[in-house]
Amino acid sequence: MQMSETEKRKILARLKTIEGHVRGVQRMVDEDQYCIDVIRQTQAIQRALEKFNALILENHLNTCVTTAIRSENADERERVVTEIMDVFETAGKL
Amino acid sequence: MQMSETEKRKILARLKTIEGHVRGVQRMVDEDQYCIDVIRQTQAIQRALEKFNALILENHLNTCVTTAIRSENADERERVVTEIMDVFETAGKL
Amino acid sequence: MQMSETEKRKILARLKTIEGHVRGVQRMVDEDQYCIDVIRQTQAIQRALEKFNALILENHLNTCVTTAIRSENADERERVVTEIMDVFETAGKL
Amino acid sequence: MQMSETEKRKILARLKTIEGHVRGVQRMVDEDQYCIDVIRQTQAIQRALEKFNALILENHLNTCVTTAIRSENADERERVVTEIMDVFETAGKL
Repeated sequence: MQMSETEKRKILARLKTIEGHVRGVQRMVDEDQYCIDVIRQTQAIQRALEKFNALILENHLNTCVTTAIRSENADERERVVTEIMDVFETAGKL
Repeated sequence: MQMSETEKRKILARLKTIEGHVRGVQRMVDEDQYCIDVIRQTQAIQRALEKFNALILENHLNTCVTTAIRSENADERERVVTEIMDVFETAGKL
Repeated sequence: MQMSETEKRKILARLKTIEGHVRGVQRMVDEDQYCIDVIRQTQAIQRALEKFNALILENHLNTCVTTAIRSENADERERVVTEIMDVFETAGKL
Repeated sequence: MQMSETEKRKILARLKTIEGHVRGVQRMVDEDQYCIDVIRQTQAIQRALEKFNALILENHLNTCVTTAIRSENADERERVVTEIMDVFETAGKL
């Protein structure tokens, strides 16, 4: 990753929040809270992880992908495109 | 949630693993690992959370939803269906 | 499917619209329109199909699933829950 | 879209198949087939549309995006990245 220290700190703060959120769901399960509320909290974590991934991907496009596409190395260019397509495919639903 | 203690312990163990996984991604960001690898790890967490939610939902269908649908209370029956539809809608992509 | 004729007509009208939408994307491809615009139109079709599936599922919960869960047949009850879980799983992302 | 005639014909054939598939679901609804079977068929259409979108996006990355990123125009470069991020966001679940 090519990222400024400020951006990295922000990204890490997001992950810390997500970690706390996961612990919150553990508490909910432990306290036998209502299933649907547990699912909703977990879906909120999913959205936070998507937002996190979107930030990493955007950074990736603006740094590594840009460098690869501007290079004369056709293999490199092909590799970055394949990687992005794989990420989309794993994500499912385009 | 209506769940046996054994099942609850399994569910909580899953969440502990997910929490550890989130800390793993923090380490990856901290060590400036390759963006695509960070995204792939986060996508693995997404799948683990989906699996977790699937288990909660299945339990919900077999307990709360079954009780509500078997009751004479039409409002209760409507409520559980609406909740399931909301979960699907938030999840996106049906 | 257990559905009133009115509801069935509405559902079929939705599918007709979606079919027209798919033909619209064919035209866009044929006219070499901008890739991102083609993708956006296709994503709009995806959303229309999700909405369609949500309507079918809601109807299913209110009819077949309710009947099965109220029956004394444990196999039937298990079957409907398994089917719903399969739909969720295929949909990905819970 | 910048696409060879051969590729364009293949892409259009895919859309024709999807259109036929949508008509197939209309028949299923018309014949009151089982809800879950209708949903499964529609989910198969969703996957076909995703595959279609993946092909368009891959082509887009290899043509328009590559041209934009190699250009000296910073606005163009920013635009293509923003568009890709929008597609991801609309697709939900990264």
